[in-house]
Amino acid sequence: MDSDIKIFAGSSGKEFAGRMCQYLGINLGKTEVIKFSDGNTYVRIADHVRDEEVYLVLPLGLDPNNEFVELIFWMDAFKRSGARYVTAIVPYFSYAKGDKKDESRVSIRARVCAECIELAGADRVITMDLHAAQIQGFFKKPVDHLFAGPLLARYLKTILSDNSVVVSPDAGFAKNARKFAAKLGVDFAVGDKIRPAHDENAEIMQIIGDVSGKDAIIIDDFILSGGTIIETAKILKKRGAKSIIACLSHIPLSEKGVEAIKKSDISLVVSTDSINNPRVKKSDKIKILSVAPLFAEVVKRMHNRESISHLFDNIPEEVFIASIRDI
Amino acid sequence: MDSDIKIFAGSSGKEFAGRMCQYLGINLGKTEVIKFSDGNTYVRIADHVRDEEVYLVLPLGLDPNNEFVELIFWMDAFKRSGARYVTAIVPYFSYAKGDKKDESRVSIRARVCAECIELAGADRVITMDLHAAQIQGFFKKPVDHLFAGPLLARYLKTILSDNSVVVSPDAGFAKNARKFAAKLGVDFAVGDKIRPAHDENAEIMQIIGDVSGKDAIIIDDFILSGGTIIETAKILKKRGAKSIIACLSHIPLSEKGVEAIKKSDISLVVSTDSINNPRVKKSDKIKILSVAPLFAEVVKRMHNRESISHLFDNIPEEVFIASIRDI
Amino acid sequence: MDSDIKIFAGSSGKEFAGRMCQYLGINLGKTEVIKFSDGNTYVRIADHVRDEEVYLVLPLGLDPNNEFVELIFWMDAFKRSGARYVTAIVPYFSYAKGDKKDESRVSIRARVCAECIELAGADRVITMDLHAAQIQGFFKKPVDHLFAGPLLARYLKTILSDNSVVVSPDAGFAKNARKFAAKLGVDFAVGDKIRPAHDENAEIMQIIGDVSGKDAIIIDDFILSGGTIIETAKILKKRGAKSIIACLSHIPLSEKGVEAIKKSDISLVVSTDSINNPRVKKSDKIKILSVAPLFAEVVKRMHNRESISHLFDNIPEEVFIASIRDI
Amino acid sequence: MDSDIKIFAGSSGKEFAGRMCQYLGINLGKTEVIKFSDGNTYVRIADHVRDEEVYLVLPLGLDPNNEFVELIFWMDAFKRSGARYVTAIVPYFSYAKGDKKDESRVSIRARVCAECIELAGADRVITMDLHAAQIQGFFKKPVDHLFAGPLLARYLKTILSDNSVVVSPDAGFAKNARKFAAKLGVDFAVGDKIRPAHDENAEIMQIIGDVSGKDAIIIDDFILSGGTIIETAKILKKRGAKSIIACLSHIPLSEKGVEAIKKSDISLVVSTDSINNPRVKKSDKIKILSVAPLFAEVVKRMHNRESISHLFDNIPEEVFIASIRDI
Amino acid sequence: MDSDIKIFAGSSGKEFAGRMCQYLGINLGKTEVIKFSDGNTYVRIADHVRDEEVYLVLPLGLDPNNEFVELIFWMDAFKRSGARYVTAIVPYFSYAKGDKKDESRVSIRARVCAECIELAGADRVITMDLHAAQIQGFFKKPVDHLFAGPLLARYLKTILSDNSVVVSPDAGFAKNARKFAAKLGVDFAVGDKIRPAHDENAEIMQIIGDVSGKDAIIIDDFILSGGTIIETAKILKKRGAKSIIACLSHIPLSEKGVEAIKKSDISLVVSTDSINNPRVKKSDKIKILSVAPLFAEVVKRMHNRESISHLFDNIPEEVFIASIRDI
Amino acid sequence: MDSDIKIFAGSSGKEFAGRMCQYLGINLGKTEVIKFSDGNTYVRIADHVRDEEVYLVLPLGLDPNNEFVELIFWMDAFKRSGARYVTAIVPYFSYAKGDKKDESRVSIRARVCAECIELAGADRVITMDLHAAQIQGFFKKPVDHLFAGPLLARYLKTILSDNSVVVSPDAGFAKNARKFAAKLGVDFAVGDKIRPAHDENAEIMQIIGDVSGKDAIIIDDFILSGGTIIETAKILKKRGAKSIIACLSHIPLSEKGVEAIKKSDISLVVSTDSINNPRVKKSDKIKILSVAPLFAEVVKRMHNRESISHLFDNIPEEVFIASIRDI
Repeated sequence: MDSDIKIFAGSSGKEFAGRMCQYLGINLGKTEVIKFSDGNTYVRIADHVRDEEVYLVLPLGLDPNNEFVELIFWMDAFKRSGARYVTAIVPYFSYAKGDKKDESRVSIRARVCAECIELAGADRVITMDLHAAQIQGFFKKPVDHLFAGPLLARYLKTILSDNSVVVSPDAGFAKNARKFAAKLGVDFAVGDKIRPAHDENAEIMQIIGDVSGKDAIIIDDFILSGGTIIETAKILKKRGAKSIIACLSHIPLSEKGVEAIKKSDISLVVSTDSINNPRVKKSDKIKILSVAPLFAEVVKRMHNRESISHLFDNIPEEVFIASIRDI
Repeated sequence: MDSDIKIFAGSSGKEFAGRMCQYLGINLGKTEVIKFSDGNTYVRIADHVRDEEVYLVLPLGLDPNNEFVELIFWMDAFKRSGARYVTAIVPYFSYAKGDKKDESRVSIRARVCAECIELAGADRVITMDLHAAQIQGFFKKPVDHLFAGPLLARYLKTILSDNSVVVSPDAGFAKNARKFAAKLGVDFAVGDKIRPAHDENAEIMQIIGDVSGKDAIIIDDFILSGGTIIETAKILKKRGAKSIIACLSHIPLSEKGVEAIKKSDISLVVSTDSINNPRVKKSDKIKILSVAPLFAEVVKRMHNRESISHLFDNIPEEVFIASIRDI
Repeated sequence: MDSDIKIFAGSSGKEFAGRMCQYLGINLGKTEVIKFSDGNTYVRIADHVRDEEVYLVLPLGLDPNNEFVELIFWMDAFKRSGARYVTAIVPYFSYAKGDKKDESRVSIRARVCAECIELAGADRVITMDLHAAQIQGFFKKPVDHLFAGPLLARYLKTILSDNSVVVSPDAGFAKNARKFAAKLGVDFAVGDKIRPAHDENAEIMQIIGDVSGKDAIIIDDFILSGGTIIETAKILKKRGAKSIIACLSHIPLSEKGVEAIKKSDISLVVSTDSINNPRVKKSDKIKILSVAPLFAEVVKRMHNRESISHLFDNIPEEVFIASIRDI
Repeated sequence: MDSDIKIFAGSSGKEFAGRMCQYLGINLGKTEVIKFSDGNTYVRIADHVRDEEVYLVLPLGLDPNNEFVELIFWMDAFKRSGARYVTAIVPYFSYAKGDKKDESRVSIRARVCAECIELAGADRVITMDLHAAQIQGFFKKPVDHLFAGPLLARYLKTILSDNSVVVSPDAGFAKNARKFAAKLGVDFAVGDKIRPAHDENAEIMQIIGDVSGKDAIIIDDFILSGGTIIETAKILKKRGAKSIIACLSHIPLSEKGVEAIKKSDISLVVSTDSINNPRVKKSDKIKILSVAPLFAEVVKRMHNRESISHLFDNIPEEVFIASIRDI
Repeated sequence: MDSDIKIFAGSSGKEFAGRMCQYLGINLGKTEVIKFSDGNTYVRIADHVRDEEVYLVLPLGLDPNNEFVELIFWMDAFKRSGARYVTAIVPYFSYAKGDKKDESRVSIRARVCAECIELAGADRVITMDLHAAQIQGFFKKPVDHLFAGPLLARYLKTILSDNSVVVSPDAGFAKNARKFAAKLGVDFAVGDKIRPAHDENAEIMQIIGDVSGKDAIIIDDFILSGGTIIETAKILKKRGAKSIIACLSHIPLSEKGVEAIKKSDISLVVSTDSINNPRVKKSDKIKILSVAPLFAEVVKRMHNRESISHLFDNIPEEVFIASIRDI
Repeated sequence: MDSDIKIFAGSSGKEFAGRMCQYLGINLGKTEVIKFSDGNTYVRIADHVRDEEVYLVLPLGLDPNNEFVELIFWMDAFKRSGARYVTAIVPYFSYAKGDKKDESRVSIRARVCAECIELAGADRVITMDLHAAQIQGFFKKPVDHLFAGPLLARYLKTILSDNSVVVSPDAGFAKNARKFAAKLGVDFAVGDKIRPAHDENAEIMQIIGDVSGKDAIIIDDFILSGGTIIETAKILKKRGAKSIIACLSHIPLSEKGVEAIKKSDISLVVSTDSINNPRVKKSDKIKILSVAPLFAEVVKRMHNRESISHLFDNIPEEVFIASIRDI
């Protein structure tokens, strides 16, 4: 019986949570958020939650600082209201990018955020395609780390030719590209930027691996300006790729980026609704699969004390159908 | 020797920290802050801080969520860089307003912020005129709680007539108004809103205490829209007050509020630079004392292991002069 | 079904807990407390509590240090015995007074106590009329903060004339007095002590607001010697108040205080049984309402996962009747 | 240079701390303690302590609950005042007795106290002859565990005959008695209570080991009523012991106990001033060695970054002389 | 209903957990442990445990470092898998020996282990006959401390003569020996090593108490080389003891120790299976009672929310029978 | 002045710490470690450390569980001995491999270890080439993450031809290989295993990128059996590579691995002494650079409050010379 799953949404998660509730056939919990004129955020839970297991949906997406502060206030509000077990559902965790010290004297921002979220009251976090899998270890509490890959792969299979190749835009994403290629049963290649000997500033892109005559799928976890994948697409074309698809877990693409993609060699962008990005309009060239049904299925199984470990081996039909309904 | 005091500034504290350094005759520490196109904040310390005692100035003011997130990243960056003792200087702590559960199922936001600041690495906090003195107790680490009152009172004494009265705009601020009146050696009165019997919605303002023929000083810790003090000023006029001054510790006044104050019965606003509020222009009607010299003097005494407890009994001449230099 | 609510009592809470159990129709849990000849306190739970939700009643009242130490030992005993969820019911929290740094180099005692109570094992605290609402924020765990006001107001309405005024004995309690006056639908006034110019030591009391010909209700959260309210009563009489009632949330009144009140201008004292104060005998002049039914009703609703947020808007008839049964 | 050792005293530690300061030739730090009429304890540090290493002396002795609460308030006050390193000197730790679960559903009180002391701010604890050495492990912070044994043994050697025996009053103290006997170079014996077959209630005392014709030294860590050692003395006499000395680390003896000891077979009691027990008057029959010089020497060595590990192998002459000055 | 008790086993606890499951009539949970060629231990839970109460059996026995590391990995794995309540069953806790600072500058290893086990995720620990009862206090979480004594005593009663004596091999174990003697209704004696005056190195063993013509039972919590009890047995023989039994809670006896015991004056060794020690073969001379049924009974009662406090007063018949089945 | 740097060594760090001390011209601190016959590890610090800054060197290498337990005991011992600041120097952190949840219901072992090391007392950690840079974020305390790369590159430059290529043995290490190639100013390539369509089990290795006629340098962070790099070497040969060097940060190579490498196509192995691996003998085919001088230089700069951020841009001559002295 799922009737008592209690899902609430923060400001940036209203639509996503709504889609989860639609999948589950339940109503979204009532909340109130005020952003005061002095910039203060105020949150209030309007339903009773004493001794309940609750889920709060709030992607840290296009406005991560405001969203993060709202998130920790929600956690505290739920705990102080006596909720028994509070799960933060964060489909996109923007600060995952700050996962190491690339330079001296910087903060490991993903760890700071993780600790504050737990301190404020989260008993568990559900998120998707973190910038690095290690970020799970920044949390002390259980993290359920979902993957968009199986869903995206299943969709791509419906549109791909036999002669495809998965391309990582740089060496850092090579391992994930390798796995994705294996899932699709195709080859993979890696993009690389090199600097010719006599010119200090210029960098030229090369592709390591064979792409000629193939349908290329550039994959990445997210894009902002789209610059790298557009450049990768250009060189892929040069190297003889037949067509180019970009496949992204998250799409926090900027306004300019949207324009640049339109003019690029990329014929199709496939991504998810993990961020509610109003700049990205669905179209023939942009397909946005919903991962809300996937998150909803996970919540349902958790609630019924079922395992979720096999969910990603074989995406259930009803999840897939719900995901592509409004593509 | 104060030469080795190391003061750094976050985005919103550059000017304030600059004034502190000017008072102390030292250079501001070097830092780098980037706000990326995806909304992520990135901070980096450009000077060495290993084993140093450092001060980071960052008011949580007009954009508190972005400022708060930047603050906790700074704390983490300093700690991970090996700084020995990190003091957060937060001249205005916007979320102090969220200091209790006024309603069911809300967050105690000031406590959440206090805990995260400590978790992220602050060893001490210096702040001023918290919305309630109890908020010191939200911190586990030492808090040095400064007061603008003595400085403001000293300034007001230079311009006040003998026949003055301090007015609290509501019952909640009565105790502070009482203390301020005692410091100035004048009477005090309290504003109150009442609701006539037959009308559910309307409220009318009354003044408890005698103000007729007196110069009234309305005091409050901060104003946003200015609505309450403007209304209080109107009724004070009606009750025969000769002139009306508003005296505020912090001034996060909105654009509209600035306009409303201009048109109001208030002849002078006196406040401080605890928030860098570009909407508030200094003028004949608005005097902004700098509390940066006061904070600087506190840091100097701390650094020299001197007590700061008597500083507020008797504001040193050099602090006062520096405070009103650019009034 | 409330049959499995498990209420236990510490030494100072036996009577209060007994009244709660009477209201709920259950038996008090069995415990043993020994105060050894060397001053050591020893506590033992005599009933099974493994995996139970338990409530421990122990006001920090007339002997707060001994009571506090007993309280933290109870918390530890319950946790080490495997109780699942331990709620400390502290009808009066004496150390709430130590809620800020009034002077240099003192302890914020309420925070110290709050932290130790949580550290020792409390999962939730239920208390009433804290000296400041902010003290909720000294706790990390949920605090249910009850109010005696609605109950006291309901009782006062049965005995008050139409022409009444609520008086705060000083500026610090003005806000609460304001609220209480609003609840009763009457005016309010504020007591203030001033110091005439030529005499350093003497202070004289004045009343800000109109009280002439009215029935005055002096309200405060608690009284020790009764000095302030007796003095306030005297000046109220001078200003023409018809009769004077004192209304207090908690009454840790001293022996001397009891005598002083008897001889004063106060015709009636109304308070609660939040502290078991044997010095205060019920009489025509002293009415002690029991708040135990209120606490019991809160526990019952918590146990049934019901909300308690509306309880104070409208005190249930059975709670009110039980409260005044032995007045 | 010891001139900057800063020693402060809580209420129960004034005399002890005074003796420490006398040994060190320094002045005791200034403090203020108020016990209010409502039982609340208030503490204030009157000297500056910012960034200082401070020592606070407060035995948890004859009134342990009040003393414990005062202790944690001191810890918090020192930390909030910016003291860099706070050492709690607790010559007697009364709650050390509550070091395990002897029965079901009790508290491990020594652990609760240890945790609260650390939580409140202690960076280190110096104490003496804990009821069990394991209690050091209840603290996370460093504990310097001093021993009265070497000092007491050195004194006893000056008055003992060659033909002595150390007697443990029960099996539980046998190990310590064994060690003390070895230090004195004499035999040891153990007291035991047995219950004759046909009588359920009566217990008779026996001695395991040979005591006939010897001078017996009963040793224990502390006595309250003195019952056990008096009974042991009686049976020792019966078994032919020549004389009986009682040697105790701490002496929280009750009024009645003092009387009982006077009338008993014990000819001499030797103990220390770890507790300020006004009931115990020094006399020919009662010798109280001061351990304050020992604690002072430890503090001095710590302050000079010297080791204290060899101090107990060979008590320095000046410490011994200071210890027996006012015996 | 016990059907849903979930018991899992670490490497060193397979057999013990198997015996527990046999007693309870349930299946052991599925797990996987790999010790990689680089010495890394890897653990995986193969059954679902989300929101379950689980028990993990892992004695810290013959290879305590590897076992301890495996234990903390299990705790983390269960917590990250969403198990609701994790109980570590540690029949033997080898590091209990490191329970105090016997020397300067050592670690209190039992505390370190206790803290890490809790940090890693244990919500409760069940163990048996800790080296000192105080070690319970090293844990913040509830510890259920079981005793082998009642079971061993019940077994010994079936084989002992009327004329027996319990012997502690040294003063440190005297208290436990005293208690065990009382349980059997017999006398007790204490072993002691003394050093004759003219020889610095040699130590000779003596027995304090009467053993002549009696059946002696040497008891101890554990033996490694057996040296002390073998020496004690030799002197007991000399003093006229008729027969000698050694009775031990835990038996981490070394290979050499097994040989030494065989050749000694000890006619029978009685111990338990708290450690899976392959060097100790059951024989006429060595009887190993299983305490697994005792642990299983405890788990069963916990699961049914029953008390376990009376279990040790009167060992249930079915537990005793199961314990001696394969003796 | 470096004379007061205090370096101590755990069992597995004696040689490494010795080399550090040799570089610094200081003596190694005195310690004692006992591994008892029951498997218990005991540690003792033989020098005074009160109020000192200390460094404890202990690679978690070939016997990581025993080494880890020893490490946390050291941390506790230093803290309980009053050391002011304790730095754990862990040249190789074996459990870094357990940095994420590759499968359901496993532990994130690197996080567990990191937390325990901090809990036990480490104030800072210095380590080298963690399996993933994110692991820094598993620590709350500062981590100084050193790199072997610059040293290895500088050495390789002395022996490499102009026509070289860096090869990552798989996609997961591509990013690091990319960086290393850039440092050497050469190309890079990636190894990949693929599975031919008709055979489920067999995998064949391919190389993405051009290696023909080049000197190939396979790089990885560590090797156990050497299987992957040997296979990579074979296919590189097939693809026309002229010579093959393997370059590894850490070398926990097994006995079998040593043999396999000898027989392989690899002509030279270059690695470091971060692990004291007695199976790996220095020879013409195996060059082991010492990173102890690098660690020593870092400690020296920390001690002198200098920055270490530029150390890796340009390895100082004296460090390089010391590193290759005994190659």
